Amino acid sequence: MLLQPSRTSLRKVSNFSLKILGTASALPTVNRNPSAQVLDVRGRLFLIDCGEGVQISLRKAGVSFLKIDNICISHIHGDHIFGIFGLLSTMGMLGRSTTLNIYAPRSFAPIMKFFFSYFGEGLKYRVEHHVLSMKSPEVVFSSKSTEMLAFPLNHRIETYGFMIREKMPMMNVRKEAISRYGLTLAEIGTLKRGEDVVRESGVISNSDVAYLPYSPRSYAYCSDTAPFPELAGWVRGVDLLYHEATFPESMADMAAKTFHSTTVQAARCALEAAAGRLLVGHYSSRFPDVSSFLHEMREIFPESYLAREGDTWEIPLVHL
Amino acid sequence: MLLQPSRTSLRKVSNFSLKILGTASALPTVNRNPSAQVLDVRGRLFLIDCGEGVQISLRKAGVSFLKIDNICISHIHGDHIFGIFGLLSTMGMLGRSTTLNIYAPRSFAPIMKFFFSYFGEGLKYRVEHHVLSMKSPEVVFSSKSTEMLAFPLNHRIETYGFMIREKMPMMNVRKEAISRYGLTLAEIGTLKRGEDVVRESGVISNSDVAYLPYSPRSYAYCSDTAPFPELAGWVRGVDLLYHEATFPESMADMAAKTFHSTTVQAARCALEAAAGRLLVGHYSSRFPDVSSFLHEMREIFPESYLAREGDTWEIPLVHL
Repeated sequence: MLLQPSRTSLRKVSNFSLKILGTASALPTVNRNPSAQVLDVRGRLFLIDCGEGVQISLRKAGVSFLKIDNICISHIHGDHIFGIFGLLSTMGMLGRSTTLNIYAPRSFAPIMKFFFSYFGEGLKYRVEHHVLSMKSPEVVFSSKSTEMLAFPLNHRIETYGFMIREKMPMMNVRKEAISRYGLTLAEIGTLKRGEDVVRESGVISNSDVAYLPYSPRSYAYCSDTAPFPELAGWVRGVDLLYHEATFPESMADMAAKTFHSTTVQAARCALEAAAGRLLVGHYSSRFPDVSSFLHEMREIFPESYLAREGDTWEIPLVHL
Repeated sequence: MLLQPSRTSLRKVSNFSLKILGTASALPTVNRNPSAQVLDVRGRLFLIDCGEGVQISLRKAGVSFLKIDNICISHIHGDHIFGIFGLLSTMGMLGRSTTLNIYAPRSFAPIMKFFFSYFGEGLKYRVEHHVLSMKSPEVVFSSKSTEMLAFPLNHRIETYGFMIREKMPMMNVRKEAISRYGLTLAEIGTLKRGEDVVRESGVISNSDVAYLPYSPRSYAYCSDTAPFPELAGWVRGVDLLYHEATFPESMADMAAKTFHSTTVQAARCALEAAAGRLLVGHYSSRFPDVSSFLHEMREIFPESYLAREGDTWEIPLVHL
């Protein structure tokens, strides 16, 4: 079961957008870099996977390296991490001094040890490796407004997915209810936290007098993975689901053998999860043109889209 | 003193061209990748330095990965080697089985050990690390037609330059001389090797009856380095000299401090070496526009040029 998010009192809400930096699988192509994305949640940047060339893609996207405090590494395959060495070096040369948090499996530790042994000279910042080892979703990052959960995927080696979401906002109390019921400050606080007000004269139901000011937004990243039963439940209701679709359905055997997913498997996950939108990537280099992937997915889940290098996906704020 | 090249009997001569893949120094920019180049000598490819993203640049340049049997690594700074991990992985996925020769300092050994420990699974080819440790030019590669020398540079850490050149061709003997002197096959062989024919009746001077069919071509790569007295002698007469020019002359102090060169220092080296052309790169990220670099160099060495990503420099064959 998915953990329930805690509430935030932050009222100022801004952007929630995903920038695609790489859509290739193991073999990059002329037009596709290895896996990398950057999610901007209200100005806080989460870099998700670090395929080779990520620092150059970040520059092209105009992303400030120094605003990245959190990096998520799904697993220790080269196409997801070979960009981290250059990025960490460049952050050092740019004068970074604040701690960099990296959420990665235990097997990431020797990679970092290697890097700091041979290329760490002069780096003035610390890397904190948050070791992922959970069997079901766990909160691994939490700020006033945002939280990130990590959960296991089903790949050839230990691999994790991530869900980053805004916390539930405090409820707004309808103005006319304040005067109608003569609500005290304490009672308003109770309602804002989503609870009912219990008086001797009776109960004032939260749903009658309070409302969510906006719908908290969410994004989930699931790559690389073969399908497995729990995943849809873990990302249920997510606004934007990135799910790998390395192969078309005709290559389901190859997908199974390599612990990857097909278009149809990704679309079924999105459907079962009741995701807002499905975005796929991590395309096999066998397919320079993946437009047929879209057709296969939309037969199952109409709100399916193809990730492309350089595209930005905004999740708009919906006021309720 | 520069070693004298041995002679080749190869008569079919084809291209000798350099493709620029990266011109950045430590900090890559939107338009500049870290150091990497590929030299094509008669279809044999030498990859020189492996900055991050090199495998993608190679693809964009249409270079076949499997034709690369020799990789030169000047030194173990990240901007010269972080691309090697992805390249070696991709070579494996493309089914490489032949040995890959890497010419690199001793400090490259633990880098390779790390790579093969964590990412070597399934690789079907061997890497032979040719350890560079010379104090003056030494031949490190030799084929029938081509040879490569390595020599030390003057950087903050152990660093090497490379010169790749065609071997001297066998001399051609003038047809009219064969009949005039009644040359035997043995005497023709002597003349082809560049020697004089000694008869009891006197000496037939090689220079009177034989000539070089073409001028052997050469390329030298000198990055990263501060100037030092021996370098010009070691690359004397090279057709194309790549020499770093990280900084303009106004930043000579910074160049000295970081063991790099300025435009003027690179041009002086080319002048002293009597190089055919000078090509500079490894530009500091402080200078998005390096056109002023050209002006500074050409005042000293008119045949100076700026390396730019994607450019190809052909060294034409000159028949004599």
